[in-house]
Amino acid sequence: MSDVGAGSAADASTAFLDRLLKAGVLIPMGADGVYGRGAVFEHILEGLDALATRAGAGDGAERVRFPPVMVRRHFEHSGYMKGFPQLAGTIHCFCGDERAHRALLRCMEAGEDWTTGQAASDVVLTPAACYEVYPMLAARGGLPEAGALVDVMSWCFRHEPSTEPTRMQLFRMREYVRVGTPAQVEAFRMDWMQRAVALIESLGLPHTIEVANDPFFGRPGKLQADIQRSQQLKFELLVPVNDGAEPTACLSFNDHQNHFGALWGVATPDGAVAHSGCVAFGLERLTLALLRRHGLDPATWPTPVRGVLWRP
Amino acid sequence: MSDVGAGSAADASTAFLDRLLKAGVLIPMGADGVYGRGAVFEHILEGLDALATRAGAGDGAERVRFPPVMVRRHFEHSGYMKGFPQLAGTIHCFCGDERAHRALLRCMEAGEDWTTGQAASDVVLTPAACYEVYPMLAARGGLPEAGALVDVMSWCFRHEPSTEPTRMQLFRMREYVRVGTPAQVEAFRMDWMQRAVALIESLGLPHTIEVANDPFFGRPGKLQADIQRSQQLKFELLVPVNDGAEPTACLSFNDHQNHFGALWGVATPDGAVAHSGCVAFGLERLTLALLRRHGLDPATWPTPVRGVLWRP
Repeated sequence: MSDVGAGSAADASTAFLDRLLKAGVLIPMGADGVYGRGAVFEHILEGLDALATRAGAGDGAERVRFPPVMVRRHFEHSGYMKGFPQLAGTIHCFCGDERAHRALLRCMEAGEDWTTGQAASDVVLTPAACYEVYPMLAARGGLPEAGALVDVMSWCFRHEPSTEPTRMQLFRMREYVRVGTPAQVEAFRMDWMQRAVALIESLGLPHTIEVANDPFFGRPGKLQADIQRSQQLKFELLVPVNDGAEPTACLSFNDHQNHFGALWGVATPDGAVAHSGCVAFGLERLTLALLRRHGLDPATWPTPVRGVLWRP
Repeated sequence: MSDVGAGSAADASTAFLDRLLKAGVLIPMGADGVYGRGAVFEHILEGLDALATRAGAGDGAERVRFPPVMVRRHFEHSGYMKGFPQLAGTIHCFCGDERAHRALLRCMEAGEDWTTGQAASDVVLTPAACYEVYPMLAARGGLPEAGALVDVMSWCFRHEPSTEPTRMQLFRMREYVRVGTPAQVEAFRMDWMQRAVALIESLGLPHTIEVANDPFFGRPGKLQADIQRSQQLKFELLVPVNDGAEPTACLSFNDHQNHFGALWGVATPDGAVAHSGCVAFGLERLTLALLRRHGLDPATWPTPVRGVLWRP
């Protein structure tokens, strides 16, 4: 299929999206990449979420759930706008009085742009589930000998409207985040790459693991992406979802080195800057991969796959 | 306690918040009303969510889960900015090139306001879980004889930073939404008021039900609130959470009359404009009410309450 052009791939992904919408698995909400989730979709996603919990059980991870926003001050400090300005979403509010409100309503009625009067609030949409973990750990002071292991899940936002069903603007990312010495982080990442392969095989999904990079913005971003690849700081587990298109990254295994530790001032007991890494499950993408592989009706899926997702 | 002043009530609510933060039940994220949820908090909230599912089981509700955003075009059409401009959150993005990006980063480095260059995207934060239900039903055409019953849950945003723990900026709202004839909607609402009382009593929570109004903006809003009250279009189930303060609305029972049906063009089989109503569970507020009533450690809660929340 390597000679299938981009046009055909786009057609195939749109055809899959159309099937999902027609079956009510996804529900149109009026914008590309923004969908309601029908009962079938949620049932699968919840099965995957529970599977990710069982796969990490016994590791003693601290469970935290963050809302779909983070504080703007933390976001600014994170440097996200340096690397990925095109993907971020800031949240703006009306702060005026009754007179300003009347002007706003006149503006809306005239069909003019009323949003220019909105002022940036102190929160932004969460770009990745682990972003709030580092300031949380920093606020607690130094790490213990064993380092930290945190289990997080959050709705994340990426501003990239697309009819490619795996490229949603809003999606749920489940992560295990490891913070500690370089050895602790690398052992965690290698261990999870093996666990993830076993997990994906138990779901009957074809897969490959490849070196990858984040979608850094612009020409300076090209250099950052090259460094990330050459140092193998990001691996992705890819599963075919769209016919004739490249397979889709459904999990990623990331080594942040000392980036977040230095940024937030997280230290190991010997006073060194902590390293961090994470395994991230793209729950929507995994759900779509299962629907693509096994069909839109989970009742007809192979019994072993059903047994893995929904324990009897 | 009716003569306790506002100062004492504020102190008491802050004291409860402090206890929650100290115990790790909630996790500070750097802004009032924005918190991470620890394992205990999520365990209780999930129990409540499952309880709301069981309380509605057998009614044949269609289950849909929406992301924490809705499309701006729908939001504008909904009239939310007329009634509640102060609570809404629009989402803005960077749409510039590399040169604009360099300017943005210089602006951030200089500590200036970089957000003015952000442009409104086509999505806004979801203000209430049911807002996407009406355009969804409208897109399907006329209602069947039995009307529609939809089970939704969504993260919702209200821009009202506060140290009062029940007044979070981001929270999850679970709703059953009924759309059909006036009789169908009113029967649904009366039925759910009874079910909710039984449910809250099974959780050992003291409660009252009162006529209420939405927080309409400004002086014209006062009139709308008065009409809503005089017509008893909104009831709230209140539970004490903060010492010395008014009890907190944890559920609401709403009759929208033909507001959303007319707005979106939803009709009953006889061609009349559909009425709608909903019962809304404030999952964070109910979780806080349980923590306030039974203590911060669910292992010590009364056995019957534990049995209701977490079926053996």
